[in-house]
Amino acid sequence: MHTHTVKAFDEEIGDLRALIAQMGGMAEEAIRAAVVALRRHDLAGAAAIVAGDKAIDALEMEVEQLAIRIIALRAPMADDLREVVAALKIAGVIERIGDYAKNIAKRVPLIDAQGDIEPLSVLPAMANLAIAMVHDVLDAFAARDAEAALDVCERDRQVDDFYNSLFRVLVTHMMENPKTIGQMAHVLFIAKNLERVGDHATNVAEMVYYAATGKHMAERDRSSFKMTEA
Amino acid sequence: MHTHTVKAFDEEIGDLRALIAQMGGMAEEAIRAAVVALRRHDLAGAAAIVAGDKAIDALEMEVEQLAIRIIALRAPMADDLREVVAALKIAGVIERIGDYAKNIAKRVPLIDAQGDIEPLSVLPAMANLAIAMVHDVLDAFAARDAEAALDVCERDRQVDDFYNSLFRVLVTHMMENPKTIGQMAHVLFIAKNLERVGDHATNVAEMVYYAATGKHMAERDRSSFKMTEA
Repeated sequence: MHTHTVKAFDEEIGDLRALIAQMGGMAEEAIRAAVVALRRHDLAGAAAIVAGDKAIDALEMEVEQLAIRIIALRAPMADDLREVVAALKIAGVIERIGDYAKNIAKRVPLIDAQGDIEPLSVLPAMANLAIAMVHDVLDAFAARDAEAALDVCERDRQVDDFYNSLFRVLVTHMMENPKTIGQMAHVLFIAKNLERVGDHATNVAEMVYYAATGKHMAERDRSSFKMTEA
Repeated sequence: MHTHTVKAFDEEIGDLRALIAQMGGMAEEAIRAAVVALRRHDLAGAAAIVAGDKAIDALEMEVEQLAIRIIALRAPMADDLREVVAALKIAGVIERIGDYAKNIAKRVPLIDAQGDIEPLSVLPAMANLAIAMVHDVLDAFAARDAEAALDVCERDRQVDDFYNSLFRVLVTHMMENPKTIGQMAHVLFIAKNLERVGDHATNVAEMVYYAATGKHMAERDRSSFKMTEA
């Protein structure tokens, strides 16, 4: 801790940003790899993703310790405090995105249907949309770019539309192939996890917006039946 | 902020604990009420739960602001810092439990099957188990009781067993009643949400244990296929 007390505040914030960027890159890659492992029924790949989640968790702990240390030692005010708190919370959200990747990977052994069925074939496109949101919102955090954060929020609707369409496709598939219901239930959870990744990117966007501007993003129009909070 | 600087640290921690207890009570009640609304197909009750979640969110923001203020103004060390950080994180978890209640409530209008079908009839018992874990772990936090926190962790297995059994019951029900698949998919998500409430109580227990002892709870035995991370 002593070496940190002589570090400039900006340097410490730079360390925080670097940790967040590293965590974000790992979580994005984990989601991408989990969907690839699913389509290939790659059990070894899936197991590696599950094991790799520990590294993301460890980084979250590093962010937390550094953020608390900065707040306690420097007592930053206003913009600086908002940014440190945002980093702390963003790390928590990225950790959860890592958990979603792990959860998807854990379902790989339970789904032996190959990628030629419709519900599985659309998952990669949905995953890519969600991952791109995560990537862009972390760029927005690094650049303190409130406008870019707003843009990420707009894109959450596409992920939701994907999910709602996939939900209907899955239910239809289950009705027509009752023997696959158990497996398709796992696919349904995977689709839900990806939809949640989009929600988390949106939450981060709200944090980035607040950190950059000191104002809360205006409550956006949300359908009262949107199923995205948990 | 000025009035707080003259408050004793213990008094500020007391305020934090009181906010956490209040949040926890609201989240427990929201989960309980959501399952009741589901069984009664009570749309007004469900809408009230959705609306009430904002109050839990507002309390989380209060906890966050108070915790950050304590860290910045008092630079607490060791035990005291661990406790403030635990409060900050526990508030985040309770907020998520509130989101699960809201999510369950939002599904009420989508499920018109009455409580006489088996999958719906077991949900209240599962909800009660999960809620009791939340209640007891917050008591453990208030009492700095590491042993009580360990006890809560042990009980998560019961909630998981409930969920795994319910998953099979739901899949069987879907196979035998294909027309209900859409609705039963929503019930499946509700069961998953309740299982997640148990997981979150376990996470809080780990935070309470660490705050009380300064040691991380030993990694407990977890099946590598346990589906509880997301």
